[in-house]
Amino acid sequence: MRERYGVLFLVSGPSGSGKTTLCRRLADEGEAHYSVSCTTRLPRPGELDGVDYHFMPKERFVHQINEGGFLEFAEVHGNHYGTLKSEVVALLEKGLDVVMDLDVQGARSVRSCKDPMIQHSLVDLFVSPPSQEELRNRLMGRGTDSQEVIELRMKNALEEMKFWPEYTYRIVSEGRDTDYLKFKSLLISQRLKASLLK
Amino acid sequence: MRERYGVLFLVSGPSGSGKTTLCRRLADEGEAHYSVSCTTRLPRPGELDGVDYHFMPKERFVHQINEGGFLEFAEVHGNHYGTLKSEVVALLEKGLDVVMDLDVQGARSVRSCKDPMIQHSLVDLFVSPPSQEELRNRLMGRGTDSQEVIELRMKNALEEMKFWPEYTYRIVSEGRDTDYLKFKSLLISQRLKASLLK
Repeated sequence: MRERYGVLFLVSGPSGSGKTTLCRRLADEGEAHYSVSCTTRLPRPGELDGVDYHFMPKERFVHQINEGGFLEFAEVHGNHYGTLKSEVVALLEKGLDVVMDLDVQGARSVRSCKDPMIQHSLVDLFVSPPSQEELRNRLMGRGTDSQEVIELRMKNALEEMKFWPEYTYRIVSEGRDTDYLKFKSLLISQRLKASLLK
Repeated sequence: MRERYGVLFLVSGPSGSGKTTLCRRLADEGEAHYSVSCTTRLPRPGELDGVDYHFMPKERFVHQINEGGFLEFAEVHGNHYGTLKSEVVALLEKGLDVVMDLDVQGARSVRSCKDPMIQHSLVDLFVSPPSQEELRNRLMGRGTDSQEVIELRMKNALEEMKFWPEYTYRIVSEGRDTDYLKFKSLLISQRLKASLLK
């Protein structure tokens, strides 16, 4: 059988949608890889450079931004996080499938990338929670957060949910295993894309 | 969950690729429907009009051709066969998935259809045999055919195999169950297309 390029599986959805669990399970089963992100924050105890993150000083991070080196990047709590285009392209060229768990802004950034390898490999999915009621249940989950915090999460999730029509594929969450069957089916089927053959 | 339109699953591949077995299994499992074809040939004993085929006189068939009523049609051994666009669109609008087992010409005809329902629903797949050697084994299968007949089948199959790049998806046949897993995954994933939501 001819070799192929990897699939770039881009997954978004609000917290409470279950998207992170889906991505992790895919990676745990060895079906897809996470790329190693870059960050300007300091390593926590036990974190390894090049494994958990590429740790880099802010100047180098900004330099990469200016060079167009990032597929996507964002600032969270004063730290920068980003995914190097070169990192992802290297995996895809080896025929490895890459899963990226990104918010709507990050997904837009990846989609707008002109690199032909990225364009060919890309498939995007939005995972929605089943209902507002169930979303609230999931966001309350830990039971330790104040009503105010839960309401804020709920507001953010509802805001993010508006953007599903930007995505080619959509899963409305039903249950863990049903969702995963669909999720994995999407990856399996994207591997069959004739345009990914080398 | 919101309702959706059906997927139109278009499958091609030479004899010996196993595509017909894949399509039948999908239909037998209730995952997709075959549309009822029209034909100008006479019913065989036990065949029911509207179930096995829509039996129609040649004049009506030709009239439908001229009216652009067929999604695809072909002549085989002096008889006409065709699929009515209206028949397929009615199934898709009900949210039923339709599988069509067509040759390269038939697939081109469906792809060129301008009906927005067809355009939205369409996914096309080419099933290739694993190797020329295995193809020959499969085509010899029944063991009752002359060398000449087998060589002709082989020639036709090799000719048809050239057209796989016209298709978005491709399965290179490995084994019955592996192929079916990929095949069904493609259907399952196409159901997730955001553009099919009503």
